[in-house]
Amino acid sequence: MLLLFALPLCYMSAGMYALPLRHMSAGIDTLGTPAITFALVIAVLGLIYLVFQARRVLAMDNGNQVMQEIAAAIQEGAAAFLNREYTFLGGFVVVVAVIIAVFLAWQTALSFILGAIASSAAGYLGMFIAVRANVRTAAAASKSLDDGLRVAFSSGSIMGMAVVSFSLLGMTLLYFLFNGNILYITGFGFGASSIALFARVGGGIYTKAADVGADLVGKVEQGIPEDDPRNPAVIADNVGDNVGDVAGMGADLFESYSGSIIAAATLGAVVADGAGIVLPFLVAGVGVIAALIGTFLVRAQEGASQEDLLGVLRRAIYSASVIVLILAAGVVVYTGVGWNFLAVILVGLVAGNGIGWFTEYFTSYTEKPTQGIAQKAETGSATLIIEGLAVGMNSTLPPVLIVAAAIMLALWLGGDNGLFAVALAGVGMLSTLGITLATDAYGPVADNAGGIAEMSDLPDEVRDRTDALDSLGNTTAATGKGFAIGSAVLTALALMAAYVQAANLDTLNLLDSTMIPGMLVGAMLPYLFAALTMTAVGKAAYEIVLEVRRQFAEIPGIMERTTKPDYKTCVDISTRSALREMVIPGALAVVVPLLIGFLLGAQALAGMLIGAIASGFMLAVMMANSGGAWDNAKKWIETGVMGGKGSEAHKAAVVGDTVGDPFKDTSGPSLNILIKLMSIVSLVFASAFGEGWLNLF
Amino acid sequence: MLLLFALPLCYMSAGMYALPLRHMSAGIDTLGTPAITFALVIAVLGLIYLVFQARRVLAMDNGNQVMQEIAAAIQEGAAAFLNREYTFLGGFVVVVAVIIAVFLAWQTALSFILGAIASSAAGYLGMFIAVRANVRTAAAASKSLDDGLRVAFSSGSIMGMAVVSFSLLGMTLLYFLFNGNILYITGFGFGASSIALFARVGGGIYTKAADVGADLVGKVEQGIPEDDPRNPAVIADNVGDNVGDVAGMGADLFESYSGSIIAAATLGAVVADGAGIVLPFLVAGVGVIAALIGTFLVRAQEGASQEDLLGVLRRAIYSASVIVLILAAGVVVYTGVGWNFLAVILVGLVAGNGIGWFTEYFTSYTEKPTQGIAQKAETGSATLIIEGLAVGMNSTLPPVLIVAAAIMLALWLGGDNGLFAVALAGVGMLSTLGITLATDAYGPVADNAGGIAEMSDLPDEVRDRTDALDSLGNTTAATGKGFAIGSAVLTALALMAAYVQAANLDTLNLLDSTMIPGMLVGAMLPYLFAALTMTAVGKAAYEIVLEVRRQFAEIPGIMERTTKPDYKTCVDISTRSALREMVIPGALAVVVPLLIGFLLGAQALAGMLIGAIASGFMLAVMMANSGGAWDNAKKWIETGVMGGKGSEAHKAAVVGDTVGDPFKDTSGPSLNILIKLMSIVSLVFASAFGEGWLNLF
Repeated sequence: MLLLFALPLCYMSAGMYALPLRHMSAGIDTLGTPAITFALVIAVLGLIYLVFQARRVLAMDNGNQVMQEIAAAIQEGAAAFLNREYTFLGGFVVVVAVIIAVFLAWQTALSFILGAIASSAAGYLGMFIAVRANVRTAAAASKSLDDGLRVAFSSGSIMGMAVVSFSLLGMTLLYFLFNGNILYITGFGFGASSIALFARVGGGIYTKAADVGADLVGKVEQGIPEDDPRNPAVIADNVGDNVGDVAGMGADLFESYSGSIIAAATLGAVVADGAGIVLPFLVAGVGVIAALIGTFLVRAQEGASQEDLLGVLRRAIYSASVIVLILAAGVVVYTGVGWNFLAVILVGLVAGNGIGWFTEYFTSYTEKPTQGIAQKAETGSATLIIEGLAVGMNSTLPPVLIVAAAIMLALWLGGDNGLFAVALAGVGMLSTLGITLATDAYGPVADNAGGIAEMSDLPDEVRDRTDALDSLGNTTAATGKGFAIGSAVLTALALMAAYVQAANLDTLNLLDSTMIPGMLVGAMLPYLFAALTMTAVGKAAYEIVLEVRRQFAEIPGIMERTTKPDYKTCVDISTRSALREMVIPGALAVVVPLLIGFLLGAQALAGMLIGAIASGFMLAVMMANSGGAWDNAKKWIETGVMGGKGSEAHKAAVVGDTVGDPFKDTSGPSLNILIKLMSIVSLVFASAFGEGWLNLF
Repeated sequence: MLLLFALPLCYMSAGMYALPLRHMSAGIDTLGTPAITFALVIAVLGLIYLVFQARRVLAMDNGNQVMQEIAAAIQEGAAAFLNREYTFLGGFVVVVAVIIAVFLAWQTALSFILGAIASSAAGYLGMFIAVRANVRTAAAASKSLDDGLRVAFSSGSIMGMAVVSFSLLGMTLLYFLFNGNILYITGFGFGASSIALFARVGGGIYTKAADVGADLVGKVEQGIPEDDPRNPAVIADNVGDNVGDVAGMGADLFESYSGSIIAAATLGAVVADGAGIVLPFLVAGVGVIAALIGTFLVRAQEGASQEDLLGVLRRAIYSASVIVLILAAGVVVYTGVGWNFLAVILVGLVAGNGIGWFTEYFTSYTEKPTQGIAQKAETGSATLIIEGLAVGMNSTLPPVLIVAAAIMLALWLGGDNGLFAVALAGVGMLSTLGITLATDAYGPVADNAGGIAEMSDLPDEVRDRTDALDSLGNTTAATGKGFAIGSAVLTALALMAAYVQAANLDTLNLLDSTMIPGMLVGAMLPYLFAALTMTAVGKAAYEIVLEVRRQFAEIPGIMERTTKPDYKTCVDISTRSALREMVIPGALAVVVPLLIGFLLGAQALAGMLIGAIASGFMLAVMMANSGGAWDNAKKWIETGVMGGKGSEAHKAAVVGDTVGDPFKDTSGPSLNILIKLMSIVSLVFASAFGEGWLNLF
């Protein structure tokens, strides 16, 4: 891979990089210094919140001896995975940073490293807390539902605030360091993106391999329930929830957040005398305040129904959205940019919530689409699979219309600064990330808490409470996915627009020679990437299956609970295979844009990006929603309809759920990052591509 | 739907249509008249071949009494379906023709009607022969393998030659009628496309509904073999093979063939003093000669192995390709266009064969990908489905690279006439359609012959021979699919380029306001369309299941062979539900481009087309190849590996095959037509769109 990077770069004259700095260095003017200082202060405020919250969570009751032992095993497994993942990524980061430093600029390399470190740190912290909050949630749920909710949600809010604070802190520091030169700061986004892709793919493979492996042997072959301590892969499964849904998703949204700000600031250099550069930072800053206020609104009454709990979280998110708008109005007045930009932020917020709403509609078992899938179970798994795929395909309609409308509105509201407005809509959508991510990242904590309650034989009422929290997490996760997908598309488009500017492609004529071939290749990449990641899950899961079977066969007394299974080996296998399998798809995402750019030129690369964004958007939505709907169709049947658990219909639904696992937790979400990473790689190397060596024209 | 058409059109001033005729009316110059006359003569030659071949086939031995009865039932069912389908389409054609005549031009309306009639006539003739050749193939196979092959292949060649002759005849007549004004002749392509979409979708729903319905109750519930005369849906299943794979595919390729010639001629108006207009007709003409020669090379020795038979068909196709190239060299000399255009034709031919080769690689059970899918059956249907989807996704890589390379080469070879060269590559790819379609359309005849042999208790050796012919058909069908997909993409792109010219969009700037929203909507349409058609198959199949169950329950003596089941009702249900379910997806393909064009303007429509082409290409390849690979994975297991028929692995493979049915025979192939139809609708209405009423900009 090193060679692939180095070869094209050697070709470039080192001087080329100086080119695109024109009108990007607005300098720290009278508006810039106080505004960025404000964002920096907010980031520090976020850090203080983190310390305070983390101390509070860690000080809580961490349960009895058994619970602590289980939690320790999960903590150990999670730490082992992250340590090995970050070690691998450390090498990757150093190599890429050297290449950037030699061939582009040391400032970009420094930003790249900082982006990678900040993203990793946020992921590490979020996960460190999550694997400690799980047992504390189980302990707290022994007292009351509200106690359980508060611990789990506090843990989620630490992940959420860590992401936004670390991102803002890193970028504002770089802003001052490089005197407001945004082009250098694009490296921060590249660093964050690289970490995100590997974390999402690696975490996604880990979590599904462990899950599928544990289920196939434990549930299907041995007939023991989920989260049963006799299952050798049970700890790996619990670790997986954390490395996939906490660290993986955190890194994903870290890069969306950073990327949207970078894209907007890059395109904002020519907006309102440079106010366009600071506006995204200010909006992000007030967003953190709004999210902080929102987190304090989350509390539940004992005996609260599922709907009550959902209402609590929704109210908190909507409140944060309203607060952002009010504060953003102040930002508009302060910076003197037009009110049209406030409308753009509103468009972003509404679009994000709208996509979330439809995601929930298509995947919730209280709604028709998922119930329709479940009903097909009557004629077997084949018809259930077909219906699930059809629902997933259908579900692309609303988000596409919403995003298309949001883009058109933003372009119209933005007037001459239309592309900046598109990017700003993305910043607006993600401005409340501190709290939307919290409602998302608390899910795996509740899930883990349930597992710990089960494994340590806590009373049924405790498990009921954690189940209520877990199921709530599944619902709010739909909203989180809406933000993740919508913001990924807006951010990738904005980064592509910034790339076009940086590569000096004044117009992008669709009928030009290399554009359509580039676009077709781009449209194909998400399919290739999804195929690779799905196959990877299969391979990794198979290794777990073999190991779990071996333990049941060779270690006597596991089923009789006289001997403990060897959890550690399963954790090791998951770790090793996930890391091994993430390398090729991850490298692909970095290498292909460079190959296309150097071989076929900057124009073909622009075509490739837009093709990948359009095609990846569809495939990501389809895979995520098909997977979510199959999962919930199974859960609906488990509530007792159509014969309930153990019926033929349930067996058919389990097949759908298994097909959906890599769809919704590995391939689907990774596609969001793929399109952003390819866009930011292109942006960072924009000045280097030129006409392309193999370009015939 | 009428209203949807009429509303936007009322808005247009009737005079607008005069605009884009500039430099398109090259007139019948010294080159034009003899060249088009040549193509016309060739078309007539094709007709003579048709009459000769049809008489020969019909004069053959049509078997014993039982066979004749079964064949009569299939003939009746097929005729009933086509009559009702064409009656519905007749109404549709009249309405659209009136709209075109009133708001565009009567000439275009006339072309539209003629295109619809020519396509329908080719489909009707092909099917008329196919449902008579099936029983004659069974009878001939009683004598020898070669006799069977010759009858079946003769039937296929009638379909192939009918498509190319009717298409050429219609277009050359219109050329003379309209004094060489290609823009009017675009109506011919629109007419052909409309028929193609409805025929593909309707036929695709029919064939899969009957197939799935017959299998679910017959094979699974009652345990009787395939093609058992006791199954009430067995005739509907055999009818389905014809209406789907003969009439549906014929209409599909009729429109690819016509569309590629129209696109090339439209873009060729400014090439080499108008020689670009006649070049596609000449290439198509010499292609017919080459195909005719090729068909005479098809004959087999008794006891020929599967490989021998495959070699026979391959040799015929490759010989035709070589002959086309030689004759095309003469065309180049005659017209005086450069040799670069001969190279373009070669690029088209090589690309078509290349895609066919890879299609076979990914879907044949002698190759790794399909065997890999089958091996996953060991861990159940879920892993088999995941692997099949992954193989389908992976299989997008080679065709995309081939098409992208072909486009770049064509653009480069074409120089200033690059887009014309892309269209010409499509014409070259399809020039041998007369024979490639023959090898494809003979498959269902052999399949039907096997069914008739089974139902009429012919000796096992007859069934073995028809099975050999059938299995050969499955392999050559892969090549046919390669041509269908590759030519669809090239034709759609060329039509889009012609649209851009006709709509006076001088450049298509990707970053312009409505372009990216249009592209996202376009990328979504294939997903929506695939979802609709998959769901339609499910609904129609369910109705068949209920009817077959009812007959087994209510009609005593079916299982004991004392009473005949009521075949006719199943045929009626399939017909009714297929026609009902085809309306919405079919109308969508016509209405959405018009809506986008009128509401958001010509620019947004261009974006929509390119988005739909890129996304539809991937989804079509993935669905067709996943479906084909699952089908053959099952067949591989049936050869005895992994436990063979009846094993757990086989059951898992049957689930994959069932999921794959609508993938490969309904949704996947329909997507090819979707992208062409939307492109040609746009081209026909190009002059009418303007800025768009809802366009904010």
